[in-house]
Amino acid sequence: MLIFPILLILLMPAATSGQPVNQPLLPLTWELGYATGQSSQTMKWIPATVPGAVQLDVAKAENYNTWYYGENWKDYLWMEDSYFIYRTSFSMPAIKSGERVFFYSGGIDYVFDILLNDEKLFQQEGMFTPVKIELTSKLKSQNVINVVIHPVPKSRTAPADRSQADHSVKPAVSYGWDWHPRLVPSGIWDETGLVIEPESSICETRTGYQLNDKLDKADISIVTAGRNLKGLTYSWTLTDGNNNKVLQKEGICSGDSIRFTALLNNPELWWPHDQGKPTLYTSRITIRDHDGKPLQSLENNVGFRRVRLVMNTLSDPEGFPKSRRLPPVQVEVNGRRVFCKGTNWVNPEVFPGIIKANRYEELIDRALEANFNMFRVWGGGIVNKESFYDLCDRKGILVWQEFPLACNNYPDDPHYLEILKQESASIILRLKQHPSLAIWCGGNELFNSWSGMNDQSLALRLINSLCLELDPQTPFMPTSPLEGMGHGHYIFRDFDSGEEVFARMNRSRFTAYTEFGMPAPASVEVLNSIIPPGELWPPAPGGSWESHHAYKAWVGNTWLMQEMIEDYFGKSASLEELVRHGQLLQGEGYKYIFEEARRQKPFCSMALNWCYNEPWPTAANNSLLSWPNIPKPGFYQVRNACRPVLASAALQKFVWAPGESFVTSIWMLNDSPQLVSRGKVKISLAGENENLDLGIWEFNDLKPNENLKGQEFTISIPDWNNGQFKLLLEVEGRPELNSEYIMLINNEQ
Amino acid sequence: MLIFPILLILLMPAATSGQPVNQPLLPLTWELGYATGQSSQTMKWIPATVPGAVQLDVAKAENYNTWYYGENWKDYLWMEDSYFIYRTSFSMPAIKSGERVFFYSGGIDYVFDILLNDEKLFQQEGMFTPVKIELTSKLKSQNVINVVIHPVPKSRTAPADRSQADHSVKPAVSYGWDWHPRLVPSGIWDETGLVIEPESSICETRTGYQLNDKLDKADISIVTAGRNLKGLTYSWTLTDGNNNKVLQKEGICSGDSIRFTALLNNPELWWPHDQGKPTLYTSRITIRDHDGKPLQSLENNVGFRRVRLVMNTLSDPEGFPKSRRLPPVQVEVNGRRVFCKGTNWVNPEVFPGIIKANRYEELIDRALEANFNMFRVWGGGIVNKESFYDLCDRKGILVWQEFPLACNNYPDDPHYLEILKQESASIILRLKQHPSLAIWCGGNELFNSWSGMNDQSLALRLINSLCLELDPQTPFMPTSPLEGMGHGHYIFRDFDSGEEVFARMNRSRFTAYTEFGMPAPASVEVLNSIIPPGELWPPAPGGSWESHHAYKAWVGNTWLMQEMIEDYFGKSASLEELVRHGQLLQGEGYKYIFEEARRQKPFCSMALNWCYNEPWPTAANNSLLSWPNIPKPGFYQVRNACRPVLASAALQKFVWAPGESFVTSIWMLNDSPQLVSRGKVKISLAGENENLDLGIWEFNDLKPNENLKGQEFTISIPDWNNGQFKLLLEVEGRPELNSEYIMLINNEQ
Repeated sequence: MLIFPILLILLMPAATSGQPVNQPLLPLTWELGYATGQSSQTMKWIPATVPGAVQLDVAKAENYNTWYYGENWKDYLWMEDSYFIYRTSFSMPAIKSGERVFFYSGGIDYVFDILLNDEKLFQQEGMFTPVKIELTSKLKSQNVINVVIHPVPKSRTAPADRSQADHSVKPAVSYGWDWHPRLVPSGIWDETGLVIEPESSICETRTGYQLNDKLDKADISIVTAGRNLKGLTYSWTLTDGNNNKVLQKEGICSGDSIRFTALLNNPELWWPHDQGKPTLYTSRITIRDHDGKPLQSLENNVGFRRVRLVMNTLSDPEGFPKSRRLPPVQVEVNGRRVFCKGTNWVNPEVFPGIIKANRYEELIDRALEANFNMFRVWGGGIVNKESFYDLCDRKGILVWQEFPLACNNYPDDPHYLEILKQESASIILRLKQHPSLAIWCGGNELFNSWSGMNDQSLALRLINSLCLELDPQTPFMPTSPLEGMGHGHYIFRDFDSGEEVFARMNRSRFTAYTEFGMPAPASVEVLNSIIPPGELWPPAPGGSWESHHAYKAWVGNTWLMQEMIEDYFGKSASLEELVRHGQLLQGEGYKYIFEEARRQKPFCSMALNWCYNEPWPTAANNSLLSWPNIPKPGFYQVRNACRPVLASAALQKFVWAPGESFVTSIWMLNDSPQLVSRGKVKISLAGENENLDLGIWEFNDLKPNENLKGQEFTISIPDWNNGQFKLLLEVEGRPELNSEYIMLINNEQ
Repeated sequence: MLIFPILLILLMPAATSGQPVNQPLLPLTWELGYATGQSSQTMKWIPATVPGAVQLDVAKAENYNTWYYGENWKDYLWMEDSYFIYRTSFSMPAIKSGERVFFYSGGIDYVFDILLNDEKLFQQEGMFTPVKIELTSKLKSQNVINVVIHPVPKSRTAPADRSQADHSVKPAVSYGWDWHPRLVPSGIWDETGLVIEPESSICETRTGYQLNDKLDKADISIVTAGRNLKGLTYSWTLTDGNNNKVLQKEGICSGDSIRFTALLNNPELWWPHDQGKPTLYTSRITIRDHDGKPLQSLENNVGFRRVRLVMNTLSDPEGFPKSRRLPPVQVEVNGRRVFCKGTNWVNPEVFPGIIKANRYEELIDRALEANFNMFRVWGGGIVNKESFYDLCDRKGILVWQEFPLACNNYPDDPHYLEILKQESASIILRLKQHPSLAIWCGGNELFNSWSGMNDQSLALRLINSLCLELDPQTPFMPTSPLEGMGHGHYIFRDFDSGEEVFARMNRSRFTAYTEFGMPAPASVEVLNSIIPPGELWPPAPGGSWESHHAYKAWVGNTWLMQEMIEDYFGKSASLEELVRHGQLLQGEGYKYIFEEARRQKPFCSMALNWCYNEPWPTAANNSLLSWPNIPKPGFYQVRNACRPVLASAALQKFVWAPGESFVTSIWMLNDSPQLVSRGKVKISLAGENENLDLGIWEFNDLKPNENLKGQEFTISIPDWNNGQFKLLLEVEGRPELNSEYIMLINNEQ
């Protein structure tokens, strides 16, 4: 959209925050200072790790017990309300004439001042706007930088919960959630150091593009900003994934910005991994001096794709009076409607400062293994570091990115809106160039009663407006769920109605299932690592189990739910048995929801479970992975339910009595871009000692990305013993498409 | 919201369009030129009326038959595709040193060029952005201004319907609607002339305010822009409705803008007429020369009020998976939830250029008579002239204002979005200071299948963004209906299901009924004025009846619906009888919808019928008024249904047979801010010769703005003759609260 100019934050005056940095960071050695007692004015100084968190530095220096064990997290609470001071000393770096020295930080959490040699240079509220401060003229031979971290923001003193975050752009999750301890990180959380910029330098380059309707031409626009560039030459290349140069340009800089356009014919498009190849090109600009010697190069990846939200099939209201059609939540990539299967991503660590690219990569690789093509980066947590989005670009995962608003009523308050504007603009400008970035979303569950925001809330109108101005080609949703989209349920069987996941999903009809949970206990190994031996068996509320969300986390006896598990399977003789049964319910429940959502395609276009990972080891949770990256058995059931092609069965309930009429409808599901050729599915029930055939369905060819509904099969449940039985779907000659479902026999009903 | 600065369009360079004018307009005498034949290059010149429309000038000069009679409108069609030239000649005005001469026009429709002495000075697309062009240095002793009007915009040649307007910011209605002929106005449509500005002058003043939460303090901010003001003195006064000076300020201009703030304690608030008094203050700024002599004064009205859209009661979804709450459409004025009763306002004339304040005033007075407190200014029509909003301010009617988008898929197209941005900004800046302006809305039925837009459409995101930037305190809705809000039905009885308005409304549950229609034939007098005698009886499709929307206007035999009328009342012996029966259905139908919507309060918060007025005389239409301002009998039924307080009955159907069990529930409705004291309602059926008592309901006090549901009453329908009977509700001692409902007996069922 040519009418929305690229916001030239890159052309802003140098001594303000928010600018990226393109020179190596010179590391600094940091100490952390804090008052040693409640009322003491004495500063104690300890070594600090940057990036990191003040909590981790204190814990290390003071030999705190591991924060994630037992109830140790409570020892950290006092730090919320303290000031902390980061301090570093350094000699004046040796610089040539014309070179400039900056202090740069990718992120400081949350309200802070920066002082050089006791002179206050800068202050900021907001952890997502990088800081870049010129120091050149103020440096002495020896220098001290202090970064003063204010107490964590709280809009009120009580209750001590997420509502304290409702006037700040700090992720609400760390104020306590049903799977996150009350541990509010604070401090320098992203790469930080000194930067020396040469006399002539380029600060930033952005490669934008506009695809034509046929997607066979990309109008590329390159905007580069720098300093003292006039008269230098520049050269630019675009190389494809095989490092072949496909476009190049050269020229002489006429001023401090370089702008030109280029046309790429037949770009190889970027696709999510399950629909094609996530092709990336590299755009590289180099400036040279008058002798042709390269001074500096900047490069960025470009993935050519068009992502839109289009209307879901059949989303018109019927009859009069007539209301509106449902909002679109069907993702279309490069003109193709894609069913989004994925998950809700939460912070992989309580202290985001310690996250490195390898933590992201192991979790993203696991998502590929699960056949996921989308992460919803949930608004209760942080906006991730750059490496997360780089990895999603490379590996082909779509990202639904929320702003840091969740489950609160963020106010129409001038100060809050000002900080939100600053932080949102920083987030948009940083992430917009990633091909994986598919959807902007204002935040989590803001249009629900427990939040209380609505379409008139200025915070959401502001974010919408900023997204339109800075990134008009990416879809925007104010929050999730919107009408027609569903969040929940989060349990296998409803506490009050007794309705199971099967009946609930069979009656549900939503354009997208953007959250749904199924809790399970962690493995015994994980439980051993977090719960002291004396508390381990039997589980009980009040201590480490409750600290780790087994009790009083959400409604009912969540998330352990021992009564429900034992109601299905009988009294557990051991922790091992309780865990095994709980984990079985998670796997069967999740499998059913993912498959039923897929059967509701094309009206339904998305299924994202709550949640993928967790920021610390929980005792019981809806996550598929225990911290840091340990799959629960349900992970593999979800992986199976998300195979691009599979046989699938619609079920009615979990427990059957002999003589009951068992009914199932059989489907072939296809989310792949390929045609699936015709074949036969054999349907049978497998008891302990006996297999019963229900019949065979001969299915026709499945068109790309289209399902096929088959027949209904019925059989009387035989007089089997109490225990488990399975429904087996076997696809002749293609065992990789087989599915199975575990249910229970109860012959005492 | 202090973070959204007032857009200083007033400080823009002088020689561009969009600026208001504050000096008397010097009138000009205009001629209109056009090619005399299809292929002719010969210009013919005729007298022109400005403001007006090219069609009316041609019709007058060429003795066309009245455009609204019979099928004469067809004679005007050729003008759509012609160029027209307005021409005026004038001598150089006598100006003093430092004075400047401008050409000013409040609105020119739609694409036009402006030439002075054959030099092209200006071009514009868009009829809602005023034009102000400085001529001073270019004037000769004798001058000619040409305004060249391009053919009306059409995005395609066929079909010849509203879709041709889908790439322009021209109201779509004139391309043909089910109650508007195909007559696309063109030309200069608002006040136009020369302006002489003194050497020192003020161009514009804006009085903004922010009320505190208690609504007892108004922080007033005055921004005035002008030219050569430095060193002059200014004085400012705020006077109340009784012309008492309540605030004043004086000062010396430091530059070409004057800015200051003032605090008003205990402002008398502006209310819609049925909730209080529409109090207006006057803000007046005067500049004086160095001798204290007044040079110029500007004034504007200010109404202090806070309008918000808040959540409707009970708008949460139940159960899991959980979707969002419904969007808010409950109007809250000054902290009080107000039930909005009103109507959809359409252009009062096909040619808006001829509308004067008195046309607006007679229609607005009629709305007060109908007990309406809200107009929805529908997006298919024009944004009205200033006098409309001034009158709504003075008389206390809330305005829901739509932008000129309706029933089309307005594209994500850069040129369209650029014009939309210009026009929307002009509209917002012009109307935002009116206290009557309660809601901004992107346009009509854009999120329905026949339009095809959705939340991702850039046009609507752009308008939302502009409203946020320029007028953040006024609620914004992207379109109507939104989810939970209903449009339709538009007939007494559904063609297919046979469902009547009574059953339909009893099963409906919407937060707002923002459109609902009930057609009726026009009176015999009106029909005589538009349909040639030979066609008048019996009505038939194909000729003047069809041109005037009696047939093939919408689905079914709309809008005359003779079959349905005669199915209820038997064959009509005359036009008079047909009209009487059709008008009776309209009145009873409308009455039922308004009252049932009120019974659904507080979940329901609004009822606006489709439509109020009409731009030409129709033969049959949902309007309450025939053009220009002739009430149909249904108008008086609606007036009764909208009384602030009344007794009201829920009904089941229109036709009853003897012996059937008649059931009705009785209510007392109160939309007034006063308590209504307890009393008794007597319920009876009145047949031709007999009255039957159903009983008496003793009702308790009604709280302000709250209804009371009473008892159900039942009786067996007696063996009455075919014909009408009435349900009577009589409130003891308060006949002004009585209600009655007409139904039919059919003893042949």
